[in-house]
Amino acid sequence: MISEDVKAFAADFEERLPGLLPPVDDQAVILDESMRYSLLAGGKRLRPMLMAAAFEAYSGRDWHEDRLAPFYMAALEMIHTYSLVHDDLPAMDDDDMRRGQRTNHIVFGEDMAILAGDALLNGAFELMSSALRTAAGNGHTQEAVRGVFAMDKIALYAGGQGMIAGQVIDVTQRATKLSRIIRMYEDKTGALLAAAIVGGAVLGGAPEEDCDILQKAALNTGLAFQIQDDILDIAGDEVLTGKPVGSDDKSDKLTYVSMVGLEQAETDAARYTAEAIKGLESLSKDLTIVQAIIRGLIGRQA
Amino acid sequence: MISEDVKAFAADFEERLPGLLPPVDDQAVILDESMRYSLLAGGKRLRPMLMAAAFEAYSGRDWHEDRLAPFYMAALEMIHTYSLVHDDLPAMDDDDMRRGQRTNHIVFGEDMAILAGDALLNGAFELMSSALRTAAGNGHTQEAVRGVFAMDKIALYAGGQGMIAGQVIDVTQRATKLSRIIRMYEDKTGALLAAAIVGGAVLGGAPEEDCDILQKAALNTGLAFQIQDDILDIAGDEVLTGKPVGSDDKSDKLTYVSMVGLEQAETDAARYTAEAIKGLESLSKDLTIVQAIIRGLIGRQA
Repeated sequence: MISEDVKAFAADFEERLPGLLPPVDDQAVILDESMRYSLLAGGKRLRPMLMAAAFEAYSGRDWHEDRLAPFYMAALEMIHTYSLVHDDLPAMDDDDMRRGQRTNHIVFGEDMAILAGDALLNGAFELMSSALRTAAGNGHTQEAVRGVFAMDKIALYAGGQGMIAGQVIDVTQRATKLSRIIRMYEDKTGALLAAAIVGGAVLGGAPEEDCDILQKAALNTGLAFQIQDDILDIAGDEVLTGKPVGSDDKSDKLTYVSMVGLEQAETDAARYTAEAIKGLESLSKDLTIVQAIIRGLIGRQA
Repeated sequence: MISEDVKAFAADFEERLPGLLPPVDDQAVILDESMRYSLLAGGKRLRPMLMAAAFEAYSGRDWHEDRLAPFYMAALEMIHTYSLVHDDLPAMDDDDMRRGQRTNHIVFGEDMAILAGDALLNGAFELMSSALRTAAGNGHTQEAVRGVFAMDKIALYAGGQGMIAGQVIDVTQRATKLSRIIRMYEDKTGALLAAAIVGGAVLGGAPEEDCDILQKAALNTGLAFQIQDDILDIAGDEVLTGKPVGSDDKSDKLTYVSMVGLEQAETDAARYTAEAIKGLESLSKDLTIVQAIIRGLIGRQA
């Protein structure tokens, strides 16, 4: 990663990802297909990339050569993917298209989409646990301990205090106040970016006292990212985003943009991005690449 | 546990369980309610009980006093509960009643039931990770390593090579051969019993070479248990089982009983139970309590 740019990272990770996945019972091949259909459908691979960058900043080592990092990166992408598969279900957002292809339940049926999501989430912890097991079993105790600390962070950010809470606010409250929309965005998107940045940093040996600043930067990035998503939903190019323009509007959802207007939203997204980047400057480690990735998000088209 | 009987265990565990759960975002209180609604609805607490018994057999210590065991036991029950919540969904088995109360999605809606299931599964790994983190952070490295090994087993048995595979076979294949029904039962029910018995044993220090025998006993127990379920579905008491008699039949599902008949099924369930109990006798540790729990299952009414 240290010597790679963003595109090269995605291509490289894309190539490794299929080989990292946990095996599936040969009587349940369709489950494997359904999981891979959504997991290997492209995407920005933003979370693994942020994790790799944060890991390298703290460890000073290339992620490729680490015993745990590749598995943790794949795990993070599995968690992200399961959340999309479940989010697209008829009982949730009821979306037919995702990343320019039909959603999982349209292709495999609702029952299989539920199970594939479950297996992706469970599989993320299979990957981390088995990598930890190998490390601990071979006497790399210090690494295993770091891995435990990182997994603890990831589990927390992914769960009922993090990403899932964001989904719940989205589904139940139809957030009507800006402060609540902000909280929803922080939970729904920011928390998993925190899993990437804080998790990667801790895996690389970051001390606990850096975690608050890293987390704050991740939440600001998530906020900027999600506002940008709202903007693209209104002003974006359907071909690039892979979903119909105005799909949020259609479902009557209040968004950051519908609350403050397009212009203000653009200003705010830029401000949150700047805050995220600035926050990282106060740390003793050089987080230039993490900052560059965050900066790149604000100009994205999809 | 060592000095408790089955009923006393359930009551004791019931009392501790609510205090072991991971906290949920205060903006998503309904998620917490939905999770607790299903998790704290009673049930036999069979998996935590088996885990405690296997743990104590290998460690020689009371589970109450262990740093990890109570959290792992709660985690196992969370995994079991999430699988029931998702299994009951309209897109899956479409069940309205479970353990004598309305199913999760009937009370909280389909979207919340999906998210509560996700949060229960994720929460199981939050519990294990945070217990591991505390142990490792306080220098109890050897315990943490055992905890990593046990979590690896649990994750494996719960996933696409275990329990979820069983669900997939159930949902897709409409199993038509006895051998396939057996495989489905082993995966669907046996795998999580293996998570309990093997996971508990490993947490208590069991060597890898005992795991195959422990696993085999768990799969046999799962088979007996599931056949017993089929029998109760036909011949059971609605008040005791908490679900309508004949509900499997109504949905046209082939079961072990419908394939071999009631009498043969009863004989086979007894045989699988006997095999499970006998298998455990070949181990060097005294697994009397695990055997007693397994023996108790064959006589159950619900």
